[in-house]
Amino acid sequence: MPIQEIHKHHLQEIFHQIMTLLEKQEIVNALVRRQDMPRQNLVESLVARQHLVELEQKLKQLHPADIAYILENLPLLQRTMVWDLVEVERYGAVLLEVSDAVRETLIEDLERDELIDAAEHMDSDEIADLVPDLPKDMVLDLLTSLNNEDRAQVQEVLAFPEGTVGALMDFDIVTVREDIKLEVVLRYLRLRGELPEQTDQLFVVDRTGTLQGLLPLKDILIHDPEVEVNDVMIVEPIFFHTDEDARDVAQAFERYDLISAPVVNIHHRLVGCIGIDMVMDFVSEINQKERLGQAGLHEEEDLFAPIWKSAQNRWLWLALNLVTAFIASRVIGLFEETISMLVALASLMPIVASIGGNTGNQTAALIVRGLALKQINTTNFLHLLYKEVGISLLNGLLLGGVVGLFAYLLYQQQALALVMTAAMMLNLLLAALAGIFIPMGLHKLGRDPIMGSSVLLTFLTDSMGFFIFLGLASIFLR
Amino acid sequence: MPIQEIHKHHLQEIFHQIMTLLEKQEIVNALVRRQDMPRQNLVESLVARQHLVELEQKLKQLHPADIAYILENLPLLQRTMVWDLVEVERYGAVLLEVSDAVRETLIEDLERDELIDAAEHMDSDEIADLVPDLPKDMVLDLLTSLNNEDRAQVQEVLAFPEGTVGALMDFDIVTVREDIKLEVVLRYLRLRGELPEQTDQLFVVDRTGTLQGLLPLKDILIHDPEVEVNDVMIVEPIFFHTDEDARDVAQAFERYDLISAPVVNIHHRLVGCIGIDMVMDFVSEINQKERLGQAGLHEEEDLFAPIWKSAQNRWLWLALNLVTAFIASRVIGLFEETISMLVALASLMPIVASIGGNTGNQTAALIVRGLALKQINTTNFLHLLYKEVGISLLNGLLLGGVVGLFAYLLYQQQALALVMTAAMMLNLLLAALAGIFIPMGLHKLGRDPIMGSSVLLTFLTDSMGFFIFLGLASIFLR
Repeated sequence: MPIQEIHKHHLQEIFHQIMTLLEKQEIVNALVRRQDMPRQNLVESLVARQHLVELEQKLKQLHPADIAYILENLPLLQRTMVWDLVEVERYGAVLLEVSDAVRETLIEDLERDELIDAAEHMDSDEIADLVPDLPKDMVLDLLTSLNNEDRAQVQEVLAFPEGTVGALMDFDIVTVREDIKLEVVLRYLRLRGELPEQTDQLFVVDRTGTLQGLLPLKDILIHDPEVEVNDVMIVEPIFFHTDEDARDVAQAFERYDLISAPVVNIHHRLVGCIGIDMVMDFVSEINQKERLGQAGLHEEEDLFAPIWKSAQNRWLWLALNLVTAFIASRVIGLFEETISMLVALASLMPIVASIGGNTGNQTAALIVRGLALKQINTTNFLHLLYKEVGISLLNGLLLGGVVGLFAYLLYQQQALALVMTAAMMLNLLLAALAGIFIPMGLHKLGRDPIMGSSVLLTFLTDSMGFFIFLGLASIFLR
Repeated sequence: MPIQEIHKHHLQEIFHQIMTLLEKQEIVNALVRRQDMPRQNLVESLVARQHLVELEQKLKQLHPADIAYILENLPLLQRTMVWDLVEVERYGAVLLEVSDAVRETLIEDLERDELIDAAEHMDSDEIADLVPDLPKDMVLDLLTSLNNEDRAQVQEVLAFPEGTVGALMDFDIVTVREDIKLEVVLRYLRLRGELPEQTDQLFVVDRTGTLQGLLPLKDILIHDPEVEVNDVMIVEPIFFHTDEDARDVAQAFERYDLISAPVVNIHHRLVGCIGIDMVMDFVSEINQKERLGQAGLHEEEDLFAPIWKSAQNRWLWLALNLVTAFIASRVIGLFEETISMLVALASLMPIVASIGGNTGNQTAALIVRGLALKQINTTNFLHLLYKEVGISLLNGLLLGGVVGLFAYLLYQQQALALVMTAAMMLNLLLAALAGIFIPMGLHKLGRDPIMGSSVLLTFLTDSMGFFIFLGLASIFLR
């Protein structure tokens, strides 16, 4: 089946076929294990082998990313069976495609020799990607098995902190000098016979390896072979330093529609390149991480991880949540006397807290976006503050009016309705301020504002919502 | 200043320089308006002109995406001033880069003629991107100003619903026949003299325009010019149909590391191509939209939109939130008698609701991710259900135990502590089920599960949390 059909409609179908084969295989295995029908043994093992061969054939036709997809969706036992059938030379490619959580389960299954064989089919930057997930002794064996150049490159990549350009970059680049004719470049390329995947341009360097410019492949094609590289090259290219933040790089790729870009060291020497494929993977990984992190999942979770392990992944957040809930509960505790006199307060107080949390999160979402796009600065900050406070007062008046009316209709007490309206207005104002200052504060502290903003904000709007409402009630309603 | 420096460290600096120039300009304008110093008029208008020229110079050096960045960050009045200084031939490029909300404010400012001039510098797919934001009469004038081919293309793109490949695709592609030599391709390309931005491959078609294969530029370069296109072309390329979901395309680009891909109609005729730049823009737009939508913002919001307009953007969600809060409040209202007998219930009940909401959202985040990656199917669904229920029981026992202890320490009532623990366990179980079935239900209904899951889930865990806790209390604690 051609790949274009697989990726679209049939990947899920193939998944089912594989599941069916696996189920047959399990039945066969179970029969073989029972061994109470010795005569049939041969037949069964033949059938078993046939299933395995069929499975292996199917896997061979698949792109490593598709094998990764299938492995992600298999429970642990079946995952191991399929993983054993993947060809060793594709181990690396598959490992790079699966999520971190699943990668761990696959690596546990690898023999030392298999890993070293697999590494022979990988680039040094790819090996470096895997190293952090390998057991320490395996890493040593792996590094020893590499040639000097590759080992040096792997170690170079590992020296860069996660999230920097250096940790993402690719060493496999083609360079040319600026004082040669395109004719010579063409001959060189034909002689070379292949180019790294996704090459869209060559890198022009001088004798010392300093970046001089870029030569897009399309410019080689459209220009007269007699002109020199420096007549057609891009002389002021966008480049990145090894220690730059990969998020900034992603923004530049998106903003300037880049496909690949050179990476230089502090001496402006070309050391590698960064391609759109890596940028896209990086962006989608960050996005997943932030989405899960926002909901309080500590890290990516294998869908088939054991219950005990998955539960741990969720405790950090729940423990924090427990503390904030206890505090909010104690705030209410302060006013138990007031509540016992007017029990309506108990049913009305969650409204104030809940709407406060929601309006605050709206503001915070806009601020987080503004921070990510670097839109917020000292010049426009005051304007923003003014706008959000204005909205909160407007909404406070409006929503406060509605809930006040609601309270009046239910309990027929004018004073209660007024307290409700006033509490809503104050809590919405507080929520707007929290929605601005919490993400900005986290950002100033160098934290990702997406991650903690919501829990901090909800904590504040809950506790303060209860405090303001019950506090006003205890003053005015006794 | 070279572009590579601008995008990195100096964009914010340039923004400040522009703000300073704008402020000077405003002072000059104010003086000119006063006109009480007629002698100085000439001097002032000269100074004014000088500032404007300086500003115009600065803008000329900037990439359209950077101009867009600056416009996004300017309050409305200053935004209009800067927008007036942008060259007409760059209007289109800038309009395509700004967010929808800001685009609206810029288009309001455009004269009919300016728009038609701007369109002359745009591709038909780009014009089609703008059309939905233009006033109707302008659209007519604009379409009339185009030549027949362009108009047909614009109308073709407009016929595809948003979010499909057809609505994103680019018509500007280079095709070749399969039975010619690379030598001929090379000559053709040199004669052509230029290729569309970001071209990484040529499209091979037959006489009827049916897609036959792809010819990557790098393959033209490395192969002997004497071989024929069909000897080196990729014969089973990944392609897309015009009516495919752009999200699926984005996933395929990421999975198979594509840079561009052909788009065909139902007769397998090549109609255009889709490039990684469009895919990246699409992905980031969707991400922004989902993030803001999750927090209850109806659409993208101009940071400098008037308060009244911004407030409206938030009402739909807040109105929904008001209804859910009212219902939760009435659930509590059912038990006012119980609460008045034991006021401790009022301070403990938010703990049950809050932790339920958080555990439910953890589950929902994993399910939403699984649905987006198409990981959830009938084969593994039961496994998943079993796992999440298991985690919820484990966490229910654990967290329920902690809060039970907390309640006991505070109020010294064993029965109250047991009710608290039992309520937590039940609400966490409910939360796990809701975290699975709510996103899956929304997905089945063809809705984006990211958008509504959280509000529905929190509503359920709040109301049911109160109901379970207070219900158990009213049975066992009287």
